[in-house]
Order: sequence, then C-alpha cells, then structure tokens
Amino acid sequence: MDPKVSTAAATPSPRSLRARDKLMHTAERLYAEHGFANVSIRMIREAAGHRNKSAVQYHFSSRDDLIQAILTRHATAIERHRWPMVQALDTSGGVSVRDWITCVIKPSIEHHIDLGTPSWYGRFLAQAVVEPSLREYATQVSMDTPSWRRLQQLRPSRRDSDPASDPASDLAERHGAMVRLLIVHMSAELETDLAAGRVPPSGAETSWRRLGDDLVTAVHGLSSALLETSSP
Amino acid sequence: MDPKVSTAAATPSPRSLRARDKLMHTAERLYAEHGFANVSIRMIREAAGHRNKSAVQYHFSSRDDLIQAILTRHATAIERHRWPMVQALDTSGGVSVRDWITCVIKPSIEHHIDLGTPSWYGRFLAQAVVEPSLREYATQVSMDTPSWRRLQQLRPSRRDSDPASDPASDLAERHGAMVRLLIVHMSAELETDLAAGRVPPSGAETSWRRLGDDLVTAVHGLSSALLETSSP
Repeated sequence: MDPKVSTAAATPSPRSLRARDKLMHTAERLYAEHGFANVSIRMIREAAGHRNKSAVQYHFSSRDDLIQAILTRHATAIERHRWPMVQALDTSGGVSVRDWITCVIKPSIEHHIDLGTPSWYGRFLAQAVVEPSLREYATQVSMDTPSWRRLQQLRPSRRDSDPASDPASDLAERHGAMVRLLIVHMSAELETDLAAGRVPPSGAETSWRRLGDDLVTAVHGLSSALLETSSP
Repeated sequence: MDPKVSTAAATPSPRSLRARDKLMHTAERLYAEHGFANVSIRMIREAAGHRNKSAVQYHFSSRDDLIQAILTRHATAIERHRWPMVQALDTSGGVSVRDWITCVIKPSIEHHIDLGTPSWYGRFLAQAVVEPSLREYATQVSMDTPSWRRLQQLRPSRRDSDPASDPASDLAERHGAMVRLLIVHMSAELETDLAAGRVPPSGAETSWRRLGDDLVTAVHGLSSALLETSSP
C-alpha cells in the first residue's frame, strides 16, 4: 500500500471538511423541515450550493451514511456535556435516583441550548429513531459512549427490587425505551414550537430547562410507579 | 349540478372500494417496513397489483391524502373500542384517575390485538406523528372523536391543583404530549419486536396487554409526579 495514498485519504483538506460539514447541516435542516420522505440527495446537494452531481457521494457513501454522520456528531457533542456530569456523580459518594436521572436527561437539553434557535436536530432525531433502517444506529450511538457506560455502573440500587437494576431484564428494557422516547420526542415537540414561533426565541433557554425539569420529574414518577408494580 | 354525477361520485362500486382498501393496506405495510422515505407511489401501486399508472391517483388525490385515509380508518376502529368504555365510565358514578387513564390507553391496545400479527399500524403511526406535513392530522384525528371529547368532560378533578384539569394550560399540553407519544412509540416498539420475531406470535396478545398495563402504570406515575411539582 502506498503510504502517501493512505495519508491523503485519512487527512481531508480543510476545504473538503467544510464542504462535508455544510452538506451535513443542510441535510439536517431539510430533513427536519420537510421530512425524510420529501428530501432527495439532489435537493441537499443543490441547497448546499454544489453543482457537481456527485458531491454528496464524494463525502458519504449513502443517504444512511450521511444521516449516521450527523447522528454521530451530535452524540459527540452530548458526550462533552455528560462526561463531566458523570464524573461529578462519580466522586459525590451516594448517588440519588434524581441525580442519576438528571445525568440521563440534562446533557441533551444542554446540547439543544447550545444549538440555539432555530435548531433542527430534535426533529431530525425523532424521524431517525422511527425509520426502520436507522433506528438501531440512532439508539446505539448515544449508548456506545464512555459516559453512558459509566452511568450504567453508577445506577443507584434500591432496597426494593429495582426493575432497572438488571439492565438485561425485560422490564428494564421496556422502561429504558419509555425514557428514551420521552426525551427524543418531547425535545422534537419543543423544537417544533420554537421553529413555528409558538415559543419566542427569547424564551428558548427557559423552555429547554423547563422541559428538562419536567422530564426528570416525569421519568422519576414513571420509574417509581413501574417499580412499585413489579415488586413482589 | 347534475345529480347523477354527484350520486355516482358519492357511491363507489364494491370493486372500487376493494381496490382502494388494498392500496391502503399495501401502503401501510410498505411504509411500516421500509419507512416513508423509501416508498414511492409507484412501489405501492405495483405491490398492490395495478398496471394502470394512475391507479393511486384515481383513489387518492395525493400521498398525504392516502396516509390520512389510513389514519382515519384506524381512528374509527379505535373509537369503536373507546365509546363503550367511556359510556361505562359515564354511568359508573365516581371516576378514578386510573380508570380514566385506562380509557385513554386501552382502546388502541385492543385495536392492536384485533389487528393480529404481523401488523403495521404501530410503525406507520409512529412515522406519521413525526413527519412535518402529517403530525397535526395524525394527532387530531383521534381527538376529534365523540368518545375523546366526552372523556375530557369526565376527567376526574382532584383536591390538589390538577395540571391537566384546564386542558388549555401549558402544563396540560406538555403532559398530554408525553402521554400521547408514550402510547404511540411504545406500541411501535412492540410491533417491531413482534414483526422481527423477538416476541413470538403466540405471545402477542399477552405482550399487548402487558404493554397496556405498563402504560397505565407509567402514565399514572408520570402524571402524579408532574402534578405534585406544579402544586403551589
């Protein structure tokens, strides 16, 4: 193998990186606003200002590859919020259920605040998690992170039989699915309201934090209720 | 206006109704299995066995019209389950919060059991509620029913300030959104597991009823928790 070729392939030029970045942003916006079903690769290329017909194919091997790259970028940004929160939890001694749930929910809320208004990630992700060819990747990409794995080890044990304490259990899986979809789809709903002007941009940060608090409370209540029923 | 023309338009032949029905079933299955983004009108027409290129256009004015017809058909079937449940609640005197939540959740669970295995409605609906052009219709179609409107009037009042007692309030809206999306997306997840054989067909009815019970419990817990926080 020619080392020059492999170096060239591994180190794209800044210009190439910018073009790739622009394609990802454009795709995310179009998918969020019009739906996966109504956006073609050609529309993305044209909206990103490329005349070269194979511009998208040059950067991404397929539509799913493009979408997965967008998902990965957001997961990396969320990881930057979750990692210090999990570290703080790690050194705090006793972990309360509420603190633990906060570490599950708040990092993606903070990421949404970072994105500003309008953003497109919420609506984009809500579609990805229900599309057959993408749902698995969209779910796994945030769980295959160091902070998520550490968080699973820190899960507070309770005196009662905790449905979530055995992550392989059936109830734990159903519970995890409920929590995941509450976060994803409630975030998409708020983003939709912000994009439509039903919530003014000046109220965006407050609304995101309120959604975060609502979700922590709701997930806490939901988890306690499911746990109580499952106790012998 | 020629009355004969209007009569002809209002009364499609049994053959035309069967063709329309077949197109709806085929579309629902293809959308559920491959995603809205990956299914064209042509694929639906061909899979339904039509050689005439305008077969879909003859029955439906657009893709969204076709999808809305599918949504309406399911809403009508769910209404047939909910109406007697709401009537029973209506004549029972005191309505408990749990009974009320059961009337929200169980009708669509019963509808899923009626559909048998495999079914496609769950995955179809999960995509419709997150697609920009369809989400409003997909949400409203089940709320614009006599049983749903009656159920709102029967909502149990509590001694505490009930976040859900004023349906126009902001918290009531956020709470309603959480409940709605839990039902829609958890049903889609179970349907996916059934379709993939991760849950055997013989266990389908048990799994649907367990999901119904889980959802009633989870929604009860979630609602109580949100209520408590919102109390002065």
